[in-house]
Amino acid sequence: MSRPDADAAPSSGDEHGRPDAPLGRVLRILESFDQTHPALTVPELAARTGLPSSSVYRIVRELIAYGLLERAGDGMLRTTLRLWELGTRSAPRLRLRSIALPFMEDLRRIVQQHTQLSVLDGTDTVYLERLQASSGVRNIMSPAQRVPARVTSSGLLLAAYLPPYRQTEILGADVGEHWLVAEPPPGARVHEATIEELRRLTARFRRDNFASLPGWITPDTAGISVPVRDRTGEVVAALSLILDNDPALIDSCLPALRATGASISRFLGWDPPARG
Amino acid sequence: MSRPDADAAPSSGDEHGRPDAPLGRVLRILESFDQTHPALTVPELAARTGLPSSSVYRIVRELIAYGLLERAGDGMLRTTLRLWELGTRSAPRLRLRSIALPFMEDLRRIVQQHTQLSVLDGTDTVYLERLQASSGVRNIMSPAQRVPARVTSSGLLLAAYLPPYRQTEILGADVGEHWLVAEPPPGARVHEATIEELRRLTARFRRDNFASLPGWITPDTAGISVPVRDRTGEVVAALSLILDNDPALIDSCLPALRATGASISRFLGWDPPARG
Repeated sequence: MSRPDADAAPSSGDEHGRPDAPLGRVLRILESFDQTHPALTVPELAARTGLPSSSVYRIVRELIAYGLLERAGDGMLRTTLRLWELGTRSAPRLRLRSIALPFMEDLRRIVQQHTQLSVLDGTDTVYLERLQASSGVRNIMSPAQRVPARVTSSGLLLAAYLPPYRQTEILGADVGEHWLVAEPPPGARVHEATIEELRRLTARFRRDNFASLPGWITPDTAGISVPVRDRTGEVVAALSLILDNDPALIDSCLPALRATGASISRFLGWDPPARG
Repeated sequence: MSRPDADAAPSSGDEHGRPDAPLGRVLRILESFDQTHPALTVPELAARTGLPSSSVYRIVRELIAYGLLERAGDGMLRTTLRLWELGTRSAPRLRLRSIALPFMEDLRRIVQQHTQLSVLDGTDTVYLERLQASSGVRNIMSPAQRVPARVTSSGLLLAAYLPPYRQTEILGADVGEHWLVAEPPPGARVHEATIEELRRLTARFRRDNFASLPGWITPDTAGISVPVRDRTGEVVAALSLILDNDPALIDSCLPALRATGASISRFLGWDPPARG
């Protein structure tokens, strides 16, 4: 949803949802708002959605009537708290977020690095929570950010525990040009990796129960991730740190990351088998 | 949106949004899901919305196609991460939540009580964040919970700083039977208060910069709230503790609550005038 090419593709990334059906048009308009564009005008919405201004105007009026958009003091349109409530009141995986949150706060306090929790959704990862460290490197991910799983340490870690057909889907997913945030930092790019390289990486991540991708998205940052398991042992999320691409720093932060991932998993009911 | 009487009232609480228009029907279905009903069937949705099963079935199919609902392993329908993203990526007041969060974690750690952040929306308060204390009393509010402002300490505190016509709206708002969560705890009720009593309370809260409502919602709990201000001095949120209805406990927790409210306000740029 955060990819600016969403206009060209069928809305909401599902091949069954027709972008020109009434609900498709509503979603195209709501999806135009994001962290870098929290306020938009009708002409801007028309440009971003490719819909005629007259249609945008009519749908916007309806969305205001239903309390999903509001006109701010400056005349710009914004999404409302009501839209946030709609998705937040029942989102199944937010229980995970609320359980993990205090552990994540402790971890951030101890290592002083950006701390993230993400889950897999289709071939993307979605960030359930991101705690920003004031001292850390620039972190380009935001909460509710969606990125192709194959471009980040958390995504490749989550892929590592899946059956082969799902791995193939994820590792082979089309990343496209707009793989990242709307305004990526200078130098950010998709790491050029063949599917074979990705397969070797995920095999190693699964063996090590730990993923590290130094210098992938920008040369000076690294992402490291560990699994979070539920009581059945299934990997349900990735806990990650985003930090300077410095091997000594990565080594010194890793034990705390591992310990926190294990603590959250224990809290979810996971009782790891004893190692021989 | 969390009030079960939403079916009777126009959907989404806005008098301009027609509940039988296509978007109104979509919202009635999405609003049927909440924390106590995270998974529903088509017949349950028909019962909760009052829509014919055939309409519900058709709309559900469309919502699945657009990725807003999904059918879980058990065949039940659930809302998706995509719906959560839609509201989370741009919600204007979530910046406030993310700034307040670490301060709230500290406060919870220190006082060991449920810690909440809420904002006013129309005549309701909406909880942006709720940090549960394991040792605390039962807390019936959940994140993204919406309740009439006049029934809680945070709501009356927020009303206290508004112009008279807005106070009248809020204090006189119709609370109805379903004023609280779908399944309130035994003994929970709306405190019987005349509008005059509410006016006296808000005047006191404004003078004291602090609200306390011991025994209002249940006899054995109390809510205490302080204002959070932005750099212009405007009160933008209430920071609250929910705790045992014990005057000594309330007195001992109050300084930490006040200090944290002031810290968050400072972080938002508020520089309080020196007192003479």
